Amino acid sequence: MTSLRIALCQINTTVGDLVGNTDLILRDLERAEAAGCDVAVFPEMTITGYPPEDLLLKPGFVRENAAQLDRIVEASKAKHCAAVVGFADGHPDVYNALAVVADGTVHGTYHKRHLPNYGVFDEKRTLREGDEPMKLYRIGGVNVGMSICEDAWIAGGPVPQVAAGGAQVVLNINGSPYRRGKVYDREQVLADRVSEGSCSIVYLNLVGAQDELIFDGGSMVVDDNGQVVHRSKQFVEDFAVVDVAVGDPEPIAEPYPIVDVTSEPVERSGETATASEWLDPLPELYEALLLATKDYLGKTGFTDVCLGLSGGIDSALVAAIAADALGPEHVHVVLMPSRFSSDHSVSDAEVLAQNFGVDHRTIAIEPGHAAFLEMLAPSFGDREANVTEENIQSRVRGVLLMALANKFGWLVLTTGNKSEAAVGYSTLYGDTAGAYACIKDVYKLDVYRLASYVNERHGREMIPESTITKPPSAELRPDQRDDQSLPPYEELDPLLEAYIEGDATVAELSERFDPEMVARITRLVDISEFKRRQTPLGARVTAKGFGRDRRLPIVNRFR
Amino acid sequence: MTSLRIALCQINTTVGDLVGNTDLILRDLERAEAAGCDVAVFPEMTITGYPPEDLLLKPGFVRENAAQLDRIVEASKAKHCAAVVGFADGHPDVYNALAVVADGTVHGTYHKRHLPNYGVFDEKRTLREGDEPMKLYRIGGVNVGMSICEDAWIAGGPVPQVAAGGAQVVLNINGSPYRRGKVYDREQVLADRVSEGSCSIVYLNLVGAQDELIFDGGSMVVDDNGQVVHRSKQFVEDFAVVDVAVGDPEPIAEPYPIVDVTSEPVERSGETATASEWLDPLPELYEALLLATKDYLGKTGFTDVCLGLSGGIDSALVAAIAADALGPEHVHVVLMPSRFSSDHSVSDAEVLAQNFGVDHRTIAIEPGHAAFLEMLAPSFGDREANVTEENIQSRVRGVLLMALANKFGWLVLTTGNKSEAAVGYSTLYGDTAGAYACIKDVYKLDVYRLASYVNERHGREMIPESTITKPPSAELRPDQRDDQSLPPYEELDPLLEAYIEGDATVAELSERFDPEMVARITRLVDISEFKRRQTPLGARVTAKGFGRDRRLPIVNRFR
Repeated sequence: MTSLRIALCQINTTVGDLVGNTDLILRDLERAEAAGCDVAVFPEMTITGYPPEDLLLKPGFVRENAAQLDRIVEASKAKHCAAVVGFADGHPDVYNALAVVADGTVHGTYHKRHLPNYGVFDEKRTLREGDEPMKLYRIGGVNVGMSICEDAWIAGGPVPQVAAGGAQVVLNINGSPYRRGKVYDREQVLADRVSEGSCSIVYLNLVGAQDELIFDGGSMVVDDNGQVVHRSKQFVEDFAVVDVAVGDPEPIAEPYPIVDVTSEPVERSGETATASEWLDPLPELYEALLLATKDYLGKTGFTDVCLGLSGGIDSALVAAIAADALGPEHVHVVLMPSRFSSDHSVSDAEVLAQNFGVDHRTIAIEPGHAAFLEMLAPSFGDREANVTEENIQSRVRGVLLMALANKFGWLVLTTGNKSEAAVGYSTLYGDTAGAYACIKDVYKLDVYRLASYVNERHGREMIPESTITKPPSAELRPDQRDDQSLPPYEELDPLLEAYIEGDATVAELSERFDPEMVARITRLVDISEFKRRQTPLGARVTAKGFGRDRRLPIVNRFR
Repeated sequence: MTSLRIALCQINTTVGDLVGNTDLILRDLERAEAAGCDVAVFPEMTITGYPPEDLLLKPGFVRENAAQLDRIVEASKAKHCAAVVGFADGHPDVYNALAVVADGTVHGTYHKRHLPNYGVFDEKRTLREGDEPMKLYRIGGVNVGMSICEDAWIAGGPVPQVAAGGAQVVLNINGSPYRRGKVYDREQVLADRVSEGSCSIVYLNLVGAQDELIFDGGSMVVDDNGQVVHRSKQFVEDFAVVDVAVGDPEPIAEPYPIVDVTSEPVERSGETATASEWLDPLPELYEALLLATKDYLGKTGFTDVCLGLSGGIDSALVAAIAADALGPEHVHVVLMPSRFSSDHSVSDAEVLAQNFGVDHRTIAIEPGHAAFLEMLAPSFGDREANVTEENIQSRVRGVLLMALANKFGWLVLTTGNKSEAAVGYSTLYGDTAGAYACIKDVYKLDVYRLASYVNERHGREMIPESTITKPPSAELRPDQRDDQSLPPYEELDPLLEAYIEGDATVAELSERFDPEMVARITRLVDISEFKRRQTPLGARVTAKGFGRDRRLPIVNRFR
């Protein structure tokens, strides 16, 4: 029984930062070499960042990514440790590729064979499917097969094929986006592949957020019995050294061609990683939202955020996420009471701001509110007040937040949740105005759960209990409450999930829910598409967010 | 020499309006039957509308579309004329299909073989490629082959294949989006296909706008010498009866299987269509913008629009488009002068409103402007005025327009052009606030050309000459002019086109343009992606608009 010493280099790349990403690769390659590793494995499209989208259509982008691969080749000279790095290969056809680099040369490349083109993925748009014959790489004396992300999700696909061709260990490099509980699906998929072909699988995932996607890390090693023998951390960079045990190579009738990289291991030093456990559901979701918010800020070059704090639960949760992700000194909350705001809302908001120790200020919106009513009076005449006047209040707040952000270089966080986004319970250019929507893919019932979790996590009542327990209200007219316009969230959220994530038809939904409610809510979801199309992106945490994975037309008469 | 009498049914379908689209099919099928046609041809995905996008992922949508096909089958009973209609076929795999319907039965289906997955197209996301053996249909005694859209763009593809298999006429049904001058590309492609296989091609295109796409119609018939013998109208529905001459079928070594539909023609009546000419470039572009605006309103259920009229050329052009597309009685313009507006801007705007006879009102923004400065004074202290205060003015205008639209049920048109959208010369939630951006894909130099064309078209100076000739300015501070922030549009527009449509790198651009300007402008384009992502959709008229055909990440460090 021998083993392959692998460095799982779960790094946080940034799309388009070719030099910076390569710097991270070189940093971890040094650490891997120092630990006596045979191979250092990096995430999918390491050099470009993932997903690069239409940047791949720019020939100059692909050229400059290839130039960075040269830096890695140069750094690999006189090292034992090989590097398996992701990059964009080729011109004019571009492949989602990995290179096996060692001792100053590229020993070979592998092109991803199965390109996902569903959900959030558009890989067939910019990439070509790999079709070259597969090879094995003898690394540290072990026969290693290569694969990229989706390749491992295909029953009978490249992973069992290369195992049948003689691979003792299969490396699988990933840019696999997070959704709640996905780590367990991945474990099952990898166990299924192992059951099809006798090999160990090293699953290396990207960590970090990119636009609406969160990559959760959670790299792992599955042995040839299908047991998970190593789990990397979730939602943070992680560098783990793992010795993957391998038996003697079995005799193969028709082995794949073997590329010799290194024939034996070298002296090993330092500790190997121990397998940790996955996070529980609520901490997992909260950590996802923290990483998403932190990376969106950091990767766009912002340090500080501002947001409107209403005294309600949504903005309370977003303030908590911002403070926990960025540090309270980088969070600026603004209370913007109107003639309709309740006293308890203002006091709840003040208590929360003090609990988190964030900068807060109060700007009453009455002067702006009154000015607009005055400017519009000649046009409106004696028409009754309606949603128009409610929207004006929300938009005055939006203008104030944007002005503060513009003046002080902050970024505005919006506070709407998925239930509201679904039914259009928001004001375009009002509460939807901002650059990043932290909880846009979190249903209202989960907002409540997360708010309670925040208090549990901090060990004290950071979010006032009254914020969590009072009936939700937009406070845009006297005595307004959400349940005057919407069903209770206990009924609404399951219906929304079945319609949005489940693509159920109205007829199917009407068998499970009140038909009148189904008709009304699905219509609201459909006609709100124009609103969602103008709202900021935000962290995707479900199987189908309102973003790149739900592409419905705005002009759409299907009901 | 015999002929096939074909009805080119260039109809304007609406995505998701399964019943309404089928009603249009039945209407034109009756007309075709009355004229003694052998076959009536309809555009791609006729029943669903095109492109249906992720509606195809809803099993109920595909089911209901199939039910509408049954209505057509029923209507075809006891008719001579066959119908070739597009629909979504199958479950769980869905195909972009056409059905050959006649005499109460579906004689066969054809599945699109080449699915575009680039530019504005995502067909591999929701559809499966056709792979069934091809067939011929004997219609009116003529051997007819079938194909769908992209199939005809493939050299050596389905069109020459089915011609080699015995087709005398190949029908090609399309949902081909407009871009400027594309009709000539299509003529060339069809001539190329004819040169590969001896057949006539009937190219039937959709007309109408869907979200950002414009389908321009312009259906045509190309004879077996590659000559265009019929051109349908552009940008309007058209019903054209064309007799396509065919020689005797040539003996074929291995003919495709033949499905008998009708063995002979019937008595013919009425006039056949005469070939018209394509529109000249400026009228073509203007008609495209009219159709786009009219359809966006009509298909979303709106009748009236409002927009801010600044006295500048962009809003003048949009007002003209709105008045010409919808009728002046449906257009409401709002002059919103500030403390920085010039007298000539106000008077130019008033003259234009009077020339077009549109409803107009003036709302000075000073009360709102002053109210915001007052509310923000405690936060801003004695900081210098900068772009923050400019944005406030623009956002006050946005709030006013939205309030009028909310109160009166209008739809707000935004007035930004492509040059501005490219470099982010706009205020989010200010001048970008609205539902539809008529000229978002029109570069500034073309805005000038179109404004002059509007006056030519109307035979008088509808847009004041001073609006066209004065230096462009946002008038957000004293004596502001565009050329203080941007290069002259004569330099800017060609650079933008090379960068956006051409995907040229900075290095490549620096060989053609001033390197300092290249560095500055490309950076502006890159960092403005977050703005564009929150702006309304609008008519796409170039080879690459800022929309579904340019998918660049917001978080992106590549420069």
